[in-house]
Amino acid sequence: MSPTSEDAAVAPASRATLSEVAALANVSVATVSKVLNGRTGVSDETRSRVESLLGERNYNRRASASSTAPLIEVLCFEIDSPFGGAAIAGIERVASEHGIGLVVSAAQDSHLPGPGWADAVLRRQPRGIILVAALLPDDDRARLRSRSIPVVAIDPYGAPATDTPSIGSADWNGGFHATQHLIGLGHRRIAIITGPDSMLASTARLSGYRAALDAAGIPVSPDHVRYGEFHRQDGFVEGRALLSGDDPPTAIFASSDIQALGVYEAARVLGLRIPEDVSIVGYDDLSIAQWAGPPLTTVRVPLAEMAEQAFQLVTRLHDEPELAFTRVDLATSLVVRESTAPPRPRGD
Amino acid sequence: MSPTSEDAAVAPASRATLSEVAALANVSVATVSKVLNGRTGVSDETRSRVESLLGERNYNRRASASSTAPLIEVLCFEIDSPFGGAAIAGIERVASEHGIGLVVSAAQDSHLPGPGWADAVLRRQPRGIILVAALLPDDDRARLRSRSIPVVAIDPYGAPATDTPSIGSADWNGGFHATQHLIGLGHRRIAIITGPDSMLASTARLSGYRAALDAAGIPVSPDHVRYGEFHRQDGFVEGRALLSGDDPPTAIFASSDIQALGVYEAARVLGLRIPEDVSIVGYDDLSIAQWAGPPLTTVRVPLAEMAEQAFQLVTRLHDEPELAFTRVDLATSLVVRESTAPPRPRGD
Repeated sequence: MSPTSEDAAVAPASRATLSEVAALANVSVATVSKVLNGRTGVSDETRSRVESLLGERNYNRRASASSTAPLIEVLCFEIDSPFGGAAIAGIERVASEHGIGLVVSAAQDSHLPGPGWADAVLRRQPRGIILVAALLPDDDRARLRSRSIPVVAIDPYGAPATDTPSIGSADWNGGFHATQHLIGLGHRRIAIITGPDSMLASTARLSGYRAALDAAGIPVSPDHVRYGEFHRQDGFVEGRALLSGDDPPTAIFASSDIQALGVYEAARVLGLRIPEDVSIVGYDDLSIAQWAGPPLTTVRVPLAEMAEQAFQLVTRLHDEPELAFTRVDLATSLVVRESTAPPRPRGD
Repeated sequence: MSPTSEDAAVAPASRATLSEVAALANVSVATVSKVLNGRTGVSDETRSRVESLLGERNYNRRASASSTAPLIEVLCFEIDSPFGGAAIAGIERVASEHGIGLVVSAAQDSHLPGPGWADAVLRRQPRGIILVAALLPDDDRARLRSRSIPVVAIDPYGAPATDTPSIGSADWNGGFHATQHLIGLGHRRIAIITGPDSMLASTARLSGYRAALDAAGIPVSPDHVRYGEFHRQDGFVEGRALLSGDDPPTAIFASSDIQALGVYEAARVLGLRIPEDVSIVGYDDLSIAQWAGPPLTTVRVPLAEMAEQAFQLVTRLHDEPELAFTRVDLATSLVVRESTAPPRPRGD
């Protein structure tokens, strides 16, 4: 079996060539090529054996602009959420400026891709992949690596550490500044509804909240720390529990704009006015923050900039696969609107 | 110049072949092929001459599944709006089930594609194109037609008539049922804030509103008919004008959910409660309708079904280009939530 042109592109001597993998798998080079490109006409058993060898032998096809399509893939959790839509719009803007098409796929409820996603990606041979609040199973990750298709994450949640290069935002600072803003207005009884404590972003924001209270010498009431899921419903449930409890807070810091809308609804149902009776701060600064009544004070996550950096990073990794990179967090900032004001003097 | 395999696929005798177009343009077949596929290496002058001839001579490349990529293109106005996001999510769902990749591009403020869009599409050779509240210039339309790339519109606005097959929804019925619901609750002073009167959807919804009032023997007050742009800001401005006017309505029918949020804000600023002091109905039934406080009664536009039908139609048109088709409107339905209630007895 003679070396093919694909072999010639594989530089490091320590890595297997296409023909070596074919010989070890006892199949033709054409069959290995089919597996590499996600084509049909290969039995599941053979495909699985070839995939294992590609991984084990550290096969690594050097991708070049000419061997890939001018496409970037986005795998996005909740495409039709305000967050997903804003991320896709941000990536599309920079991709279209560079003449690159953007292929969008929805991640499933598990944040994982749907069946067939990885095969379809291998057939399309994109320049790279951007995950938006999405995760990849290890075997998909290995398959993409052996084809030199780089993966970058826009990670709003601080997902459990992987070796995926990621663009996040400064969660601790966001939590700190939001809480500091409320303290500056004169609030002392400030509650937080955070996200699931399995997510690093939740922990960082909560830690920023505690640090701001500590710095002001205000003790944190355990009753005022609640856990939600970033959704409207948990904002409503936890917000109602807080506002109708024995020691109602005068301000609530929610962990997403959508969750803040749930707190709005809890206040409305209880006959409380915003900000006169309770101040509310959100997180993300999506369009819905401006649309809320009253417009929502919130922590701005710089999604457009994150999308642009993710695009540039995945493009650089396509050209320079050995580029060292782990994670960059972009700055968050507070956007003050009408949902926060000084607390009313207490009657008691 | 001998016929190429591309010529063989052009069936009707009345249509020019690739080599005829090349001879007329005094260029090689390879050059015509470059123009057809949106490739570089052709002068603007030559490209323009070849494009004109392709159009004039009714050149029509018969596209087949093997000559096109397994991609569908979506050109979408306001990707990151709740409406755009819901449409993209609906198309992605059905496309991924069929193993088709979805390339998403943003239309500009004019609803037209950005520069370079048509060239990029020709290079990608998709199965077809779905417009979401977007428009194509005539020359792009002609270029796509000569490559047999079908175009289908998801058209929420009833854009000025073109020959583009489109999937819309029943606007007149939506306007009629929303108004009938308010009449059924006992309202007599019912205002409407509609969209721009250049859009057929606006006219149809307004006509449905008038018909429902006529049917109930309620005269339409000219002051109660207002024009907006489907945005929050015009909902706020027109809502405030209506609610602080001499003859305030007891119910307002807005033309989009986002516009209805503007009316919510007008009510809030004026100290009016929803639905106790004023009932509000929206249009679209996007997620923001459920998230509003109180949750918004609205007319549901069946976007997921529209997306599915648009996908199936563009796929059929790819396989059967001669398929006769103009427009299908899917049924709208009323979703009653908490923003509507009987009017309060008048004090006067």
